[in-house]
Amino acid sequence: MSEKQKKPQKLKARLPRGFTDRSAADIHATNEMIEKIRGVYELYGFDPIETPLFEYTDALGKFLPDSDRPNEGVFSLTDDDDQWMSLRYDLTAPLARHVAENFNEIQLPYRTYRAGYVFRNEKPGPGRFRQFMQFDADTIGAFGVQADAEMCMMMADTLEALGIKRGDYVIRVNNRALLDSVLAARGVNESQKVNVLRSLDKFDKFGWDGVFQLLTSGRKDESGDFTKGAGLSSDQAKALYRLFANPVVDSRDDEPLRITIGQETVSWPKSRREFFSDFRRDGKPILDDEQVQSGAFDWLMPIMMLLSDPIDGTDVDFSPLIALFDISGLVSSAGYGNDRIKIDLSCVRGLEYYTGPVYEAELTFDVTNEKGEKVVFGSVGGGGRYDGLVSRFMGQPVPATGFSIGVSRLMTALKNLGKLGQTKPLAPVLVTVMDGDVESMGRYQRFTQALRNEGIRAEMYQGNWKKFGNQLKYADRMDAPLAIIQGSDERAAGIVQIKDLIEGKRLSGEIEDNAAWREARVAQETVPEAELVAKVKEILAAQAEDRLRAQGN
Amino acid sequence: MSEKQKKPQKLKARLPRGFTDRSAADIHATNEMIEKIRGVYELYGFDPIETPLFEYTDALGKFLPDSDRPNEGVFSLTDDDDQWMSLRYDLTAPLARHVAENFNEIQLPYRTYRAGYVFRNEKPGPGRFRQFMQFDADTIGAFGVQADAEMCMMMADTLEALGIKRGDYVIRVNNRALLDSVLAARGVNESQKVNVLRSLDKFDKFGWDGVFQLLTSGRKDESGDFTKGAGLSSDQAKALYRLFANPVVDSRDDEPLRITIGQETVSWPKSRREFFSDFRRDGKPILDDEQVQSGAFDWLMPIMMLLSDPIDGTDVDFSPLIALFDISGLVSSAGYGNDRIKIDLSCVRGLEYYTGPVYEAELTFDVTNEKGEKVVFGSVGGGGRYDGLVSRFMGQPVPATGFSIGVSRLMTALKNLGKLGQTKPLAPVLVTVMDGDVESMGRYQRFTQALRNEGIRAEMYQGNWKKFGNQLKYADRMDAPLAIIQGSDERAAGIVQIKDLIEGKRLSGEIEDNAAWREARVAQETVPEAELVAKVKEILAAQAEDRLRAQGN
Repeated sequence: MSEKQKKPQKLKARLPRGFTDRSAADIHATNEMIEKIRGVYELYGFDPIETPLFEYTDALGKFLPDSDRPNEGVFSLTDDDDQWMSLRYDLTAPLARHVAENFNEIQLPYRTYRAGYVFRNEKPGPGRFRQFMQFDADTIGAFGVQADAEMCMMMADTLEALGIKRGDYVIRVNNRALLDSVLAARGVNESQKVNVLRSLDKFDKFGWDGVFQLLTSGRKDESGDFTKGAGLSSDQAKALYRLFANPVVDSRDDEPLRITIGQETVSWPKSRREFFSDFRRDGKPILDDEQVQSGAFDWLMPIMMLLSDPIDGTDVDFSPLIALFDISGLVSSAGYGNDRIKIDLSCVRGLEYYTGPVYEAELTFDVTNEKGEKVVFGSVGGGGRYDGLVSRFMGQPVPATGFSIGVSRLMTALKNLGKLGQTKPLAPVLVTVMDGDVESMGRYQRFTQALRNEGIRAEMYQGNWKKFGNQLKYADRMDAPLAIIQGSDERAAGIVQIKDLIEGKRLSGEIEDNAAWREARVAQETVPEAELVAKVKEILAAQAEDRLRAQGN
Repeated sequence: MSEKQKKPQKLKARLPRGFTDRSAADIHATNEMIEKIRGVYELYGFDPIETPLFEYTDALGKFLPDSDRPNEGVFSLTDDDDQWMSLRYDLTAPLARHVAENFNEIQLPYRTYRAGYVFRNEKPGPGRFRQFMQFDADTIGAFGVQADAEMCMMMADTLEALGIKRGDYVIRVNNRALLDSVLAARGVNESQKVNVLRSLDKFDKFGWDGVFQLLTSGRKDESGDFTKGAGLSSDQAKALYRLFANPVVDSRDDEPLRITIGQETVSWPKSRREFFSDFRRDGKPILDDEQVQSGAFDWLMPIMMLLSDPIDGTDVDFSPLIALFDISGLVSSAGYGNDRIKIDLSCVRGLEYYTGPVYEAELTFDVTNEKGEKVVFGSVGGGGRYDGLVSRFMGQPVPATGFSIGVSRLMTALKNLGKLGQTKPLAPVLVTVMDGDVESMGRYQRFTQALRNEGIRAEMYQGNWKKFGNQLKYADRMDAPLAIIQGSDERAAGIVQIKDLIEGKRLSGEIEDNAAWREARVAQETVPEAELVAKVKEILAAQAEDRLRAQGN
């Protein structure tokens, strides 16, 4: 290597790829959101807990939906005792570790919530960050669907607390156990299962054609990257389309069924009446005659056929489907209609650790995507039952259910709706500096402190005071409501000038450059030093009134 | 390796060494603190900014006070493009990167604050964590001591806002430039400087004997670990003791000085009057005759001697000392006496990047340490001027000053003082489950939701409902104020029972076990379903009144 090549490059200030700095506006908006979400979780009886950002790699396990990177999507390093540690990729796996580690001290059922950063070692891309915030709630030690139902209601309440109108969201509920049964009935083996679930989870993104490719031989994306297929046969894959299909029944109640599911028409040896009479809880039919005849539950047919086929008719396990009906019944008892929380068999969560009901919060209004197309905003969070995650550490089963909200994604949605950013604080009053000797500076500092003591945001100019124009430019750039000025003449007279910068801007129209600034007629008052604070308060109150009036228009 | 050895261990739930989980009480207390600190920073005109947890390793630089570990105290890993990334070890270096990267968009002076986790890859020990929270404020583009003075005032205000009484804290101020001058005058070379500063910074911890060892040949700690010395001669080290000494003058104003500094007695060719007449700002003596004669500034003598020795009397640069006097003048103008902010030449900050004034917030009350000894609580935060840190990335100088509060450490102090934990939310009302059918569950859920709709924290029992004793035990453990009960008889009659658990506890004294619980006379009311919410509100209000009365006693 030559001397020239060895010469060090100049140090460059740059963010690592896939990470971002957050602005004051973003931070205020996030805090506002977090407070509202926290309020709902607290109301539901949940208490906070926090785990560190690192966990031992083995304790986290490998449950990520996408692991297309060498170290499986996780940031990992070895500690000095050679143990592997990883940054958490979600807030669920660390909670499972926490519960298992403190099992004897924890009173079950254990309701907790957590907000925090998680990390994914993924390929960075536009809007795709490797550090992002999640806000989770979980109940550990709750075995029944009533806990899952409560999670769905809490998600709905959270969205409404954030200002999302009823009708602009829906909580979709499905059951992983149901999907497991379907896949088993279709001859999908354990090693294929995870990839099949991840493929089905892509329906919203790629449509059926893309999912079909992923289920079978694989899919090449627009950039040319190839994702390996799950290896199902074409027939196996086609049957799974029934999860997403809206069936059309073309037979009378007492005739053998003939139904169209997408492009496929299926004949079935039972009539609609017979078909639904098999669907029982505790020996009693779940749907009454009227419900069956109305056709309102025909959407159940494809999934029930998937469970029952090949037909032997006797030992089909409908319990995962019944669990969904129970959730539906519980939430509607509590006042949540299926405009807010609905069974949706196409809701598939990609994470491997789910074992029962899964749920997803979807925003249903349209937004314009980066290609200029109108698309449904989509998922902002979800979760499900993970009865096996705590048990990994224990000799005993520990049921659990919970969900996660993607804070940044939800914030994007709220910004779209104009529901955030109401709490931006007023910029500080600027106390300008005309003389730089210690005594004068002390006096300016005293003015500043007197304002702060009355709860008024204020700062003394800390840049190079010799260029007064820069001080006014600074005041303008940061939207200071007032500037306080005292030169040697005013000082000798014991007075101060107060410039009303908002009034000044209004009078002169929008002031665009520094020259215009200086020329603009700026509203200005001169008061004795002792009256400074009172006058500032008075002007700020008048400005606040103006703002209210302007919002009223 | 034998088969037996290869057998995998059972997965163990354990926190990584040096990390900790945080409880609900801790999180509530932290949020309460953060809000109060944020309030003060906002009042001073600072706005939030946030950087990610990762930075490129070269952008962070190596400025840690202790680097006793292989990878220099920092957690680092390589990205997939072979660039080294590190988790931030403080919030200052990432801010410098942010400012340099966005220099053209940022209006200087730039006042910002940030709260967040930082990471140190250090040897874990009791109370020594590898992830902890800092809360920083900085002004970039502020070249004058008025900015440093403001930081000191803001630290004082922050401590008072948190409930720390005047007199229980002091902000100590020194000047790194002064120390630099002293070290240069004592022949300490650049390569020794950092270690000398770090050694001096240990005065509070190890006393003079320990510092002397660190300054010279090195020190062995109680565990036998050896820290290499900075390599000063014994005479060089001894002279530095003058930084910590309180001198006693044993000569009249017009006699050559004879002063005792610790165990050393020094003779000096000038009288006190002559000595202080050299100490000038803009050609004028800083201290007047009365101040000189009072002896109140004799503490300046050792440092001035350190600066002047070897004596040539003419070109001694007192400007770093004068800067301290300017800070003192500015803060006292603004109403901060030296009981709150004081010059203290023994204040040495260990971080390498400081270039000017440094300051440290110390809590002065006694606490009992782990050995049972009474010790001063000590530092809870500090900072200083770092004019070179942003400049590393730029072709131009960018002055900056700021400080960091150690959130966890300050929280420990506030807990000691009983100043935290006032905002713990009331535990939820428990709606118990007597019947597990879907319809009953739906009804219990409806009661719960009705309470929540009125803003009352409430939850339906989510554990195994069949053991009713467990439900009451759970209510007791989590301090539920009320339990709602409806069995089939009550249901048929359209009524619910409300158990006042606080009243119950009070009547029965403190109930200690489950058996006692069941036997205790528990206050109980029965109301029609429709009156449930109103009655719950009424009882909760009565409980709240009781609590207020109890606090009044």
